[in-house]
Amino acid sequence: MRKIAIVMGSKSDFDKVKPAIEILDKFAVPYTVRVLSAHRTPDEAADFARNAKANGYGAIIAVAGKAAHLGGVLAAATTLPVVALPVSTSFLDGLDSVLSILPMPSGVPVAVMGVNAGANAALFCVRMLAVDDTALDKKYADYVESMREKTLADDEELQKLINK
Amino acid sequence: MRKIAIVMGSKSDFDKVKPAIEILDKFAVPYTVRVLSAHRTPDEAADFARNAKANGYGAIIAVAGKAAHLGGVLAAATTLPVVALPVSTSFLDGLDSVLSILPMPSGVPVAVMGVNAGANAALFCVRMLAVDDTALDKKYADYVESMREKTLADDEELQKLINK
Amino acid sequence: MRKIAIVMGSKSDFDKVKPAIEILDKFAVPYTVRVLSAHRTPDEAADFARNAKANGYGAIIAVAGKAAHLGGVLAAATTLPVVALPVSTSFLDGLDSVLSILPMPSGVPVAVMGVNAGANAALFCVRMLAVDDTALDKKYADYVESMREKTLADDEELQKLINK
Amino acid sequence: MRKIAIVMGSKSDFDKVKPAIEILDKFAVPYTVRVLSAHRTPDEAADFARNAKANGYGAIIAVAGKAAHLGGVLAAATTLPVVALPVSTSFLDGLDSVLSILPMPSGVPVAVMGVNAGANAALFCVRMLAVDDTALDKKYADYVESMREKTLADDEELQKLINK
Amino acid sequence: MRKIAIVMGSKSDFDKVKPAIEILDKFAVPYTVRVLSAHRTPDEAADFARNAKANGYGAIIAVAGKAAHLGGVLAAATTLPVVALPVSTSFLDGLDSVLSILPMPSGVPVAVMGVNAGANAALFCVRMLAVDDTALDKKYADYVESMREKTLADDEELQKLINK
Amino acid sequence: MRKIAIVMGSKSDFDKVKPAIEILDKFAVPYTVRVLSAHRTPDEAADFARNAKANGYGAIIAVAGKAAHLGGVLAAATTLPVVALPVSTSFLDGLDSVLSILPMPSGVPVAVMGVNAGANAALFCVRMLAVDDTALDKKYADYVESMREKTLADDEELQKLINK
Amino acid sequence: MRKIAIVMGSKSDFDKVKPAIEILDKFAVPYTVRVLSAHRTPDEAADFARNAKANGYGAIIAVAGKAAHLGGVLAAATTLPVVALPVSTSFLDGLDSVLSILPMPSGVPVAVMGVNAGANAALFCVRMLAVDDTALDKKYADYVESMREKTLADDEELQKLINK
Amino acid sequence: MRKIAIVMGSKSDFDKVKPAIEILDKFAVPYTVRVLSAHRTPDEAADFARNAKANGYGAIIAVAGKAAHLGGVLAAATTLPVVALPVSTSFLDGLDSVLSILPMPSGVPVAVMGVNAGANAALFCVRMLAVDDTALDKKYADYVESMREKTLADDEELQKLINK
Repeated sequence: MRKIAIVMGSKSDFDKVKPAIEILDKFAVPYTVRVLSAHRTPDEAADFARNAKANGYGAIIAVAGKAAHLGGVLAAATTLPVVALPVSTSFLDGLDSVLSILPMPSGVPVAVMGVNAGANAALFCVRMLAVDDTALDKKYADYVESMREKTLADDEELQKLINK
Repeated sequence: MRKIAIVMGSKSDFDKVKPAIEILDKFAVPYTVRVLSAHRTPDEAADFARNAKANGYGAIIAVAGKAAHLGGVLAAATTLPVVALPVSTSFLDGLDSVLSILPMPSGVPVAVMGVNAGANAALFCVRMLAVDDTALDKKYADYVESMREKTLADDEELQKLINK
Repeated sequence: MRKIAIVMGSKSDFDKVKPAIEILDKFAVPYTVRVLSAHRTPDEAADFARNAKANGYGAIIAVAGKAAHLGGVLAAATTLPVVALPVSTSFLDGLDSVLSILPMPSGVPVAVMGVNAGANAALFCVRMLAVDDTALDKKYADYVESMREKTLADDEELQKLINK
Repeated sequence: MRKIAIVMGSKSDFDKVKPAIEILDKFAVPYTVRVLSAHRTPDEAADFARNAKANGYGAIIAVAGKAAHLGGVLAAATTLPVVALPVSTSFLDGLDSVLSILPMPSGVPVAVMGVNAGANAALFCVRMLAVDDTALDKKYADYVESMREKTLADDEELQKLINK
Repeated sequence: MRKIAIVMGSKSDFDKVKPAIEILDKFAVPYTVRVLSAHRTPDEAADFARNAKANGYGAIIAVAGKAAHLGGVLAAATTLPVVALPVSTSFLDGLDSVLSILPMPSGVPVAVMGVNAGANAALFCVRMLAVDDTALDKKYADYVESMREKTLADDEELQKLINK
Repeated sequence: MRKIAIVMGSKSDFDKVKPAIEILDKFAVPYTVRVLSAHRTPDEAADFARNAKANGYGAIIAVAGKAAHLGGVLAAATTLPVVALPVSTSFLDGLDSVLSILPMPSGVPVAVMGVNAGANAALFCVRMLAVDDTALDKKYADYVESMREKTLADDEELQKLINK
Repeated sequence: MRKIAIVMGSKSDFDKVKPAIEILDKFAVPYTVRVLSAHRTPDEAADFARNAKANGYGAIIAVAGKAAHLGGVLAAATTLPVVALPVSTSFLDGLDSVLSILPMPSGVPVAVMGVNAGANAALFCVRMLAVDDTALDKKYADYVESMREKTLADDEELQKLINK
Repeated sequence: MRKIAIVMGSKSDFDKVKPAIEILDKFAVPYTVRVLSAHRTPDEAADFARNAKANGYGAIIAVAGKAAHLGGVLAAATTLPVVALPVSTSFLDGLDSVLSILPMPSGVPVAVMGVNAGANAALFCVRMLAVDDTALDKKYADYVESMREKTLADDEELQKLINK
């Protein structure tokens, strides 16, 4: 199975990365976590992206806040799908990060997840890997079913508590 | 090769779909275009998504404007990767469409492209398909190189025109 | 009297639902509270809406945050009036939830209340039920009068305290 | 059948009212259209609302742009459900109108439709009237079905045109 | 000297009113503080405004948050200058209050102060009263001078502390 | 009667000033129109403000767009009431101008009108002048009444046209 | 005199560059105009910045719209001052470009000009060059004086036309 | 070496100034810190700017929040480069300060840094001073290298901790 690369622009983003890691662990998807900055280590960031496909990666999650250029810098250096995970700092709840990466120029696509939505970034990668991996797809379907059952249980519990 | 499904919520979104079609044609990626509404044909939309993997699709592009629920409705009914293409109508340049689909709840990921960025939505799907398809990946690398050469040519032309 | 259905997308929205329940209790309007998710239990959500009128409901309050698709999914499956109660999470004070449900496409109306305005969502439903229910309308008029008297008392108290 | 009152704050809003009228005509719902301003004719506006229930109305649609106080002024003077139709002028695509009426204080509910969504404002009122009016509800269900068929036809047409 | 009326829509706005009171006390400008709601006591609010000029007022400060209609309701019922003081609640730092009152329709002016800027609302009224009141104008000029001196002292203090 | 000063930051704002002039002409209020820039002629702008009260002015309307500092520069140099008229250019419909002048620091009040609301800026000044000028107040009351009659006539005309 | 580099991300930004060129021509400041994309020619862009100081440049103006990463990519590769000129496309009047470059991470500064403010970007560079260049500073002071005289002339002309 | 002037509009902004001071100390760049208000000490502010070049300054950092006019007032009185440091107060995370200074009128440039980005404001000034100061430029290059090494160390540390 191809690995997922999680690249964050700063070590301080690590808390936002943890939910992604938990999902990848849960689905037994291999991954690497890196700190590579578009502005402080641009060469290392581009090098990583340039070699990522050959090194066995199947997608890159680019985690960045503020002027979130990391996704663009990585997408410019690889043909792998790049998923941006915008994170919030202290300005506009992360809307700056979203607007920094959502309107990528035509020709260089980056797919954007919700602000701080680390679990969903990882789940989207699982969906990509599962397209032709029946076992992983089965695990994903089980995950979907477990969410459904959890919601139905919540519903039942709340109805007992409240409804007349 | 798996097909790409382009699902739009209304026929009026077709103009925004055309750039996606052009990209898929250019890369000879097979696709299907559908009009399926989260609100007017919810059963047909869910049915389509439910069977999409079995029917040979590798990803779904959900094209919607305003209260853009289509991506969520499709993602809830499939384990395929769903890419949302928010389109603008007459309100806030499509920011409503973006905010309708970007903050999907944890557990149900949708990856969002820029507003009206049909070409990029398709290119992102090509990247997904190309991960393990060497020929398609080569085509994509050529495309990247052609963009690079186009920019260098623009640079050269402009320099001749202006610089002293 | 027809019942009011309060449907929330996640159990975590329950705190925002409580003010609605208090209003309905105060007016002795019957209600049911459900947890039904547009994304985790879409079939159950649509089923509930499809049968809501036959099951004695007069309106549905759809409580949802983030990419708030619940109101749209329910409105697509019923002819009952659907009132959306957008709730805030950690992004833009819930503006995302508002923009997710306010611009519904033409043909599928959803009426939107203020962010976290659970009491008003319930009061709007009471107004609907009271249109042809003289007793309930009388109760509502008393409620309006009590708010008026409360404000006049506040005014009097403050004037004693401050004015010269 | 109770009538719907459409109250606009200024004659210049009439273009935004027309789609509401067309819907009400289509469903043969009786209505009255008024120009009553929260700021230029506040007494007449309040009087109208005060007597609206006794005069046979079942709901009021308040059409207003800019500092859109009309819905609040009417809701303060009646126990009928008040539906606000915010309209856009030249500022922020009507976001000012939305924010003027969406966050009504607790106790005085107004239900808000999308900007310039006149058809939906009327359709929401039809849903309210149809709750206990089987014939009208049947018409509404037919309307829903016709939208569904229109979408399916659009889908079929587009598929013929494009898909391979 | 004419009095200033400070009208707040809810007793809970009183904290935002206190800085205005302190300014008026400081300048010995007479004032009245009232709780009058555009939505809960609309008749009393309009009555107050209607009689305010005859009752010796020279301006009205309308303090309101959320869907801040109070300034509009008062301005519609008086020819006195009405100054709106938008206050913040829990949504968008009070931008909703600003957009609720800033774009008043042509013909019914309301002048808007910054969010929660109670002191400035009062100071603006002092400026109005001081136009033809030499003694008050002298006090205001002294106030301006004291701010200037305070800033110069801050500057001096900081320079001693830091500069080299 | 004291004069009104209309100061615009650039000649290009003159179109937005015209509605203010029409109002002042209609009420026979004397006025002066100036082009004085906070950034291009700061000394002349401050000088004008410094002498405005002595020169017979009763209020200053500061007309400015973009980074709209004019109102602040004038308010810093006079004790007269300063009314800001933010005008729109090509960015965010003038929201930049509003946010440039609305949140003035405590101690230096500027009262803000709606974007491009030249008529209201002038009407607010007329209200200020009319506080102790019975004849002008009478004119203003007539103006209010004429707006009321215009609205009632619009209402009547529309009712004839539409209602059944 | 050091040269100014104007680097635009796409040839389509050239219209926004022209006002900058006019200013530099007017002040006889040497410059080079380049098309270098952060995403399509990242290596060439970084190379240019890396060698810019040695090649005689004194500042770089980075012109970019949408996800405007160019300023960050250039600033990461040079110690020269980088001035970003955000340009508007069809989304939010260029607010996306502003938010893409304004919140640069600590350690990698980029100074941002107004949207489409090409003349000011160039004028800022002239100010930088003029710090220790008396002749250029004199030209700049003359430019300031000419703006002042133009404004005074506008003022005089308008006063003749209007004031009474 | 020319000095940097840091001018803040209010002593309360001093916390946002500290990171700028630390950077200037680190690079041994001389500086002066002043409290000068565009609204409370406009004459002193303009005087300071007018004489700043003659007094040995090479750039001015204008620190201001809310209606942030300081940068404009200073830029109008000097030909030195003016860098604005917008600071956040309690409204929209400082977006008001940004929009108060970003769209300066053509002819009077101010370069804007991120909200509360004191370190970057100082670093930008260091870049300006270093253009023709080889020793300072060397220090800056070392600073860039140290950031790079810090990021590489963070990367290494995190990889040891997490990757498998």
